[in-house]
Amino acid sequence: MAMMRAVTFSDGAIKFRDDYPRPEPTSDEVLVRVTRAGICDTDLQIVAGYMSYRGVLGHEFVGVAEGGSLAGQRVVGEINCSCGQCDLCLGGLANHCPNRTVLGILGRDGAFADYLTLPERNLHAVPDELSDDEAVFVEPLAAAFQITRQVRLSERTRVLVLGDGKLGYLVAQVVKLQNAPVTVAGKYPEKLELLEHVGVGTVAVDELRRLPAFDVVVDATGSPSGIELALQVVRPRGTVVVKTTVAERTELKLADVVVNEITLVGSRCGPFPAAIEALKQRRIEVIPLIQDIYSLAHAEAAIAAAAKPGARKVLLAVDESVPAVKRVL
Amino acid sequence: MAMMRAVTFSDGAIKFRDDYPRPEPTSDEVLVRVTRAGICDTDLQIVAGYMSYRGVLGHEFVGVAEGGSLAGQRVVGEINCSCGQCDLCLGGLANHCPNRTVLGILGRDGAFADYLTLPERNLHAVPDELSDDEAVFVEPLAAAFQITRQVRLSERTRVLVLGDGKLGYLVAQVVKLQNAPVTVAGKYPEKLELLEHVGVGTVAVDELRRLPAFDVVVDATGSPSGIELALQVVRPRGTVVVKTTVAERTELKLADVVVNEITLVGSRCGPFPAAIEALKQRRIEVIPLIQDIYSLAHAEAAIAAAAKPGARKVLLAVDESVPAVKRVL
Repeated sequence: MAMMRAVTFSDGAIKFRDDYPRPEPTSDEVLVRVTRAGICDTDLQIVAGYMSYRGVLGHEFVGVAEGGSLAGQRVVGEINCSCGQCDLCLGGLANHCPNRTVLGILGRDGAFADYLTLPERNLHAVPDELSDDEAVFVEPLAAAFQITRQVRLSERTRVLVLGDGKLGYLVAQVVKLQNAPVTVAGKYPEKLELLEHVGVGTVAVDELRRLPAFDVVVDATGSPSGIELALQVVRPRGTVVVKTTVAERTELKLADVVVNEITLVGSRCGPFPAAIEALKQRRIEVIPLIQDIYSLAHAEAAIAAAAKPGARKVLLAVDESVPAVKRVL
Repeated sequence: MAMMRAVTFSDGAIKFRDDYPRPEPTSDEVLVRVTRAGICDTDLQIVAGYMSYRGVLGHEFVGVAEGGSLAGQRVVGEINCSCGQCDLCLGGLANHCPNRTVLGILGRDGAFADYLTLPERNLHAVPDELSDDEAVFVEPLAAAFQITRQVRLSERTRVLVLGDGKLGYLVAQVVKLQNAPVTVAGKYPEKLELLEHVGVGTVAVDELRRLPAFDVVVDATGSPSGIELALQVVRPRGTVVVKTTVAERTELKLADVVVNEITLVGSRCGPFPAAIEALKQRRIEVIPLIQDIYSLAHAEAAIAAAAKPGARKVLLAVDESVPAVKRVL
């Protein structure tokens, strides 16, 4: 059996292994040789026990298809692998298939490895214009675009993004693309500055209550307390988009939701084509988000770096094209 | 100063008084002589400390206008009294006016009294076809109709109403009027039977998980645990309408909202004209909901009766047309 390197999580421990079995694609799957992977806050939640996941970590990646109609091309991949036969799949909600596996999150080995497999229909070709370091952002950027499919945004919609982290940076730019006036509230001056550089207005979170209430608030804090703050700064009949997945249970003053008739919208994975196109057209910046690139063998240190408060995006160079630790900024 | 009878709440105590000052209407208000009032779960929450309210209790009523263009006519009244001048009022969201008072709930004496005052624009004439016992249901029925303004319902929308109480009974009938297939989940066989009598399908709450997931779930449980159950039985991308106002903070597994991309919609007060018209056309039943009618002097006992688990609607006969305690059913 062919072996490969992989970063696994089981029994509460992250392990780098060089003797992990290389996955064998089934008839509708494609083997992908991973070149870059990204560490997402969901990975950090998984390592904290969310989803009770065991297996190879990681779901943000770019790689090269080793088979199928995209053989030899660079690809990114949608992470939900659905059955294609249940009512939800047939009803157009394949991402919510109850029989689904999810790359590196639920019942399917992930991207922090030399190889992964995904159904061929999950793969999207990466345009030549995009570097690997950019393409690895397609998955989280698609999640940011999902908001535009769930909430109507226009130049008259005042939007607040709570959280100046990786997701907040992407969400704010996507909202701005819809011509909606957008403000990001955060607590890291250097991150707020990154946002100002891409033309997004910012406010220190402590100053937030001085502003008029917002029509739409996106909780991208990654913190259980984000939703409570969101409910305080959204206008009556406004919308709170919940992007934060936390393992913990969250306490909520639900009476505020009722009295102010707030709409809460949970939002998860989104459309890859929109994300790829926006990156290709250079309408979204992602490179300034990158903090460090680690080699796969140093994934545990990389995850620790990603978990530090205020960390930006930490990438894994799976193809060994970069030295053990390359500090980008 | 003219005096009247009134049921007040302050310092944690309900008191019947016969020496409470009769309210004086301002230039845009009308004095209303109350004939019937209804005890709502919100009143029970207020008595438990919700809203830190002090003053005359009650917001569901029918009475006779003593002035204004409806003088001498029977009226019901919308409970939110807005300023008419702020951005929310001018933007069509008067019910959410930050300067509002709310009858018997926020800064304005309520309906458990011989007289109340409301702005004239809040009053609606009661058609002759409706008895006082029916008209007193206009306010909660309007709140049930609010759902139809917030969520699109059709014959293809499978709706579950959680809770077989007063609100659940009204909401289920309103949903049925929209031709949406509706099921009520409850725990009181005699209440589920009332629902079957008006053509609504029912299920014991313990059996709920055997049914396929619902497109829309309305939480009308009045319990902090309702929302959690709602999240378990709504389909991915489905909608949960939150009708329950509870004083307590509620614990929520917010990750479920995100992963299943659920929409939560808070829902409060609704359109009086729709409620009046539906009652007039005999498309909604309310009389079977009435459990007891107490005289105003026995309001404390009435509130205690309304607070018993499984209680139906308890009314107050303010005009003394009924004896001290009249058991209707």
